[in-house]
Amino acid sequence: MYTIAYQGVKGAFSYLTALKGFGSQCHYIGCSTFKEVYDCVECGQADYAVLPIENSLIGSIYENYDLLTSYEMQIVGEQYTKIEHCLHVLPGSSLSDITKVMSHPKALEQCKNFFETHPWIKAVVYCDTAAAAEMVSHAGDPTCGAIASEACGPIYGLEVLQKSIEDDPKNYTRFVSLTKKGIHHPEATKCSLMLQINHIPGSLAEILSIFSRRGLNMTKIESRPLRGSLFEYQFYIDVEYSEGLEGVFDELKIKSQSMRVLGCYKGELYG
Amino acid sequence: MYTIAYQGVKGAFSYLTALKGFGSQCHYIGCSTFKEVYDCVECGQADYAVLPIENSLIGSIYENYDLLTSYEMQIVGEQYTKIEHCLHVLPGSSLSDITKVMSHPKALEQCKNFFETHPWIKAVVYCDTAAAAEMVSHAGDPTCGAIASEACGPIYGLEVLQKSIEDDPKNYTRFVSLTKKGIHHPEATKCSLMLQINHIPGSLAEILSIFSRRGLNMTKIESRPLRGSLFEYQFYIDVEYSEGLEGVFDELKIKSQSMRVLGCYKGELYG
Repeated sequence: MYTIAYQGVKGAFSYLTALKGFGSQCHYIGCSTFKEVYDCVECGQADYAVLPIENSLIGSIYENYDLLTSYEMQIVGEQYTKIEHCLHVLPGSSLSDITKVMSHPKALEQCKNFFETHPWIKAVVYCDTAAAAEMVSHAGDPTCGAIASEACGPIYGLEVLQKSIEDDPKNYTRFVSLTKKGIHHPEATKCSLMLQINHIPGSLAEILSIFSRRGLNMTKIESRPLRGSLFEYQFYIDVEYSEGLEGVFDELKIKSQSMRVLGCYKGELYG
Repeated sequence: MYTIAYQGVKGAFSYLTALKGFGSQCHYIGCSTFKEVYDCVECGQADYAVLPIENSLIGSIYENYDLLTSYEMQIVGEQYTKIEHCLHVLPGSSLSDITKVMSHPKALEQCKNFFETHPWIKAVVYCDTAAAAEMVSHAGDPTCGAIASEACGPIYGLEVLQKSIEDDPKNYTRFVSLTKKGIHHPEATKCSLMLQINHIPGSLAEILSIFSRRGLNMTKIESRPLRGSLFEYQFYIDVEYSEGLEGVFDELKIKSQSMRVLGCYKGELYG
């Protein structure tokens, strides 16, 4: 039985994604920050971490890209979770009773239409979606609601007043599973790399041509500031493949300043 | 006499950068959000906007990249400002009097060593560095300090107790000046572009090779989610040049789905 660390409380999208991937037999530890999740695995308290890495509306979750650099862990899997926001209230409360709704700022932002069409309801920022549901349940205030995943209803004894209140239904978050152990996935089809490239004209084009010459599909490129430098960047690259990448790695090592394989894993589809 | 919009209040790093670029004869409007700054220029209330676009420690300021897409404005200049944080207090207060220090969360984060070596001082999050200085001045509380630019001292009648309390001295922010009018800068040496590329393997490599074949230095590439799509991206690219870019533009138009020139302007050096 594995122990899985995630950020948030039960019912959080990270929790639901971890549960979907690892099953109900595992033990789950909710942490208050992304860093704590990494630390949990680093010190051996958890076997795996499940962390959000990008969202289709918001973009990359940069803090997790930066943390990837600081820890010696491997990405061993990815999962896409559809972000559907529900309005939760205490059982018996109706929409006209509700005067304020709490949630994570990004969730509130993604439900603008709901607040525009319900002008008597105030959006109140809270640290977390599921934690907002937990709070509404504990506070016992019939005028207060929370925006969180549908799963938070049974977890916190709340009633779903409205489902899918997000403005844009194309709202998916990509999560990655990390572990300290270097697992080689036999069906790996996707590889995540971190590269520091030479600071000369054309060096990134040269690196990318290593993939394109082989017809490999780069699904993502992300740049983050390189620590200790001034406006220099390191690049995070995801690439899909069907055959071995050994030749690619050899060439990348020669043509870049440094390369780290963050993990080779089975690429998933969203939806 | 021009009117310049910036985010924050007098003494903010945006304000100081705008002042450095446009001089004391101009009129300055402080806005509470980045979006308001854009709106100010859009509606003609201001002639120029000065906005932070990236920081050497934090990385890109993604909100401003996303807003660039929504408005029809041109980048007409860039400026680098060194971010030096000072501890401001009411005149007469000493370090032992101070129990809490307020500032923007990123500024507090950049001064961790200060708080570790002064454990009796609590870091308190405030919306803005200069606004924290203004607040300390108005509140008249001798136990309260603010972390803000040195310039905030004379502006808000505060005393600088300690200078350069940031942990990492390599802390620069790059600002851009925007305007509605398409100004062609005769000494332009840098161009900012926004590109949507075809979603097929090798397309980004092909785009970048357009620059590298000509020996052009790409100083920055940033990817942001493409609205209305799922995990597709648009790219923001900065490129340095000495001769005309017409040939480059023609080729980019053919090889990309869409291209927008955000501006050609004189590239500046930091420091």
